[in-house]
Amino acid sequence: MNSSKDTFEVTPWGVSGVVDYEKLIKEFGTQPLTDDLIKKIELLVGEVHFMIRRKVFFSHRDLDLALSDYENGIGFFLYTGRGPSGPMHLGHIVPFYFTKWLQDKFNANLYIQVTDDEKFLEEKRNLSWEEVRKWTNENILDIAAVGFNPDKTFIFTDTEYMWKIYPIAIKVARKINFSLAKAVFGFDLQTNIGMIFYPAIQIVPTLFEKKRCLIPAAIDQDPYWRIQRDIAEDLGYYKTSAMHSKFIPPLTGFQGKMSSSKPETAIYLSDDAKTIRTKVYKYAFSGGRATIEEHRKYGGDPSVDVSFQWLYMFLEEDDKKVKRIEEDYRNGKLLTGELKDILIEKLVTFLEKHKERREKAKEIVNLYKYEGKLAKEMWSDLKTQALT
Amino acid sequence: MNSSKDTFEVTPWGVSGVVDYEKLIKEFGTQPLTDDLIKKIELLVGEVHFMIRRKVFFSHRDLDLALSDYENGIGFFLYTGRGPSGPMHLGHIVPFYFTKWLQDKFNANLYIQVTDDEKFLEEKRNLSWEEVRKWTNENILDIAAVGFNPDKTFIFTDTEYMWKIYPIAIKVARKINFSLAKAVFGFDLQTNIGMIFYPAIQIVPTLFEKKRCLIPAAIDQDPYWRIQRDIAEDLGYYKTSAMHSKFIPPLTGFQGKMSSSKPETAIYLSDDAKTIRTKVYKYAFSGGRATIEEHRKYGGDPSVDVSFQWLYMFLEEDDKKVKRIEEDYRNGKLLTGELKDILIEKLVTFLEKHKERREKAKEIVNLYKYEGKLAKEMWSDLKTQALT
Repeated sequence: MNSSKDTFEVTPWGVSGVVDYEKLIKEFGTQPLTDDLIKKIELLVGEVHFMIRRKVFFSHRDLDLALSDYENGIGFFLYTGRGPSGPMHLGHIVPFYFTKWLQDKFNANLYIQVTDDEKFLEEKRNLSWEEVRKWTNENILDIAAVGFNPDKTFIFTDTEYMWKIYPIAIKVARKINFSLAKAVFGFDLQTNIGMIFYPAIQIVPTLFEKKRCLIPAAIDQDPYWRIQRDIAEDLGYYKTSAMHSKFIPPLTGFQGKMSSSKPETAIYLSDDAKTIRTKVYKYAFSGGRATIEEHRKYGGDPSVDVSFQWLYMFLEEDDKKVKRIEEDYRNGKLLTGELKDILIEKLVTFLEKHKERREKAKEIVNLYKYEGKLAKEMWSDLKTQALT
Repeated sequence: MNSSKDTFEVTPWGVSGVVDYEKLIKEFGTQPLTDDLIKKIELLVGEVHFMIRRKVFFSHRDLDLALSDYENGIGFFLYTGRGPSGPMHLGHIVPFYFTKWLQDKFNANLYIQVTDDEKFLEEKRNLSWEEVRKWTNENILDIAAVGFNPDKTFIFTDTEYMWKIYPIAIKVARKINFSLAKAVFGFDLQTNIGMIFYPAIQIVPTLFEKKRCLIPAAIDQDPYWRIQRDIAEDLGYYKTSAMHSKFIPPLTGFQGKMSSSKPETAIYLSDDAKTIRTKVYKYAFSGGRATIEEHRKYGGDPSVDVSFQWLYMFLEEDDKKVKRIEEDYRNGKLLTGELKDILIEKLVTFLEKHKERREKAKEIVNLYKYEGKLAKEMWSDLKTQALT
């Protein structure tokens, strides 16, 4: 597997190969998340989320400045998003749970952009508008299930909120020519003119407040933030901060990321216990040995074992427990089947709870979209806003 | 002057040289406005506007089909627009007065798009957003002064109405790739991504109703309609019809069109009688002879005389009067100064009336924008529209 480390690619529309995250930090020109920064977070809010501790969030831009702004009472706001191209899987929802932690700890406003336009415009998907609308509504329920602060969270879809996005988007767009968009996003002559304009739209929410924005997202979205940081100050706003996460590996192994179009690579939020069990037993790439005897004798390799990695990266908060699992697996005490059972139990519990919350969210989703304190503010001044 | 007829250029963002309209019909692939069509109009509504009669509107696309739809009781709707880059001059307002005639005679809904986004995005202009907003409001008052039917007219600015434009614009945009936009509009690597997307936005109002749209506009806007006609039926709408006008020649002669950036070429709607007099005396290109004696003896040339052309093209409705002026000028009875005086009187009267109507329009402009019957319909379903 190491030999393929040289050939990986990370863009907002696809990840291939085995990602070398150290190399990505250099390529993208971001900063590694240092132990000092982690200590700073602990100092400020009393604890550190295990995904930071374990460096699932491994890289950042100006996180130090965002933390200073918080320390100085200025604060920052959070922004993340979702492209509604299909049902959500675990890899999609985990960053939202992490974002909720950030919101709770830093008491920050949070803007969640649902990019229905992007997913409709992306030609390789060839989704109908009805399909995009369907997934938009479904995905918003899953996001609402996470339990954000209803007075400090605004969930919006691009097409619906465009009256307020567009006047800012044209200011952004005037500063991005085709040459730059082509270089950063790989556009070509065949790219449709909606997709070419789209980067301006994804940048807009970073300018929703005259404070620093902090974006927790997988590192494939960083190209947008790079452009944002080139133009934000000219427009009278802050350069955005960002925290970059690794990709949760596909169930089938470390190549690429979980994909909605390959059901065997992902656990969907709608999967039931039986499906989860079948998928994990059948597809979860194992670091175990060929036979039980060999496994007992030589032990397994948790570093390539997807079941272990999922527990480590986002399912088992308890450091002691995760350490014990790792050791037991490495020294052969824990068999692959047993490790998979631990994962299955965690997954089933996580998704059962999520589904319950999703049902309840149906009653309050309107708070995030229209009626909560922040949402109401963001919908105010309709009609007259553009005229002032 | 004839020798330069081979080198002219007409694009949505500039007109140069002396336009050969016959050649343009061939180049753009439009149809000449025939005498049969003119008779058909007379048959349907009892009269023909002198700008049609005199072939100021000289070319069209599918006007015959729009007229048939009217004849069959289906009807059509009208769409035109304004780019608010500065104060409006005569060349800008004349098509609106013509459009009012169409609306009155055909009892049609009319949509007027004010393209604040386009004018902000057009880099060579380098307008601030505040300037664009100012001209948007000023221009809308001039347009409202024309006296459209307040229950059948909707004046909107792109940025303000984007919540309803954008969901349609992305359907249009998905069908236009950079290659096509480049070929039709001359975009290049330096073009900003907002301008590249903009054509989709100008096409959207042609899809506001599931009827045929008829666009009365100068022929430089035709490239948009060409693309519209390639994609409209795929989207489940009608190919738009269009009536193309010639450019009212600049005061200074037949090169290009009146330009806001060259004050001597245009009469502004805000010009007072004194300014009008000075401009006409000083700049109006004359087809007269060098001396009064020569003029009396050989006569003038009305075909190149801008004063005569303005009277002919949009100021003197009365065919008999305009014919007499032409003959008197050609045979030397009418001197250049006298011809200019006729023009000045017409201009002063026209603009005085326009200014009066503009004052009154301040009280009713809200009907066109928000409160009239059509405007109200167009603003309904806000928030929920995009969700259905």
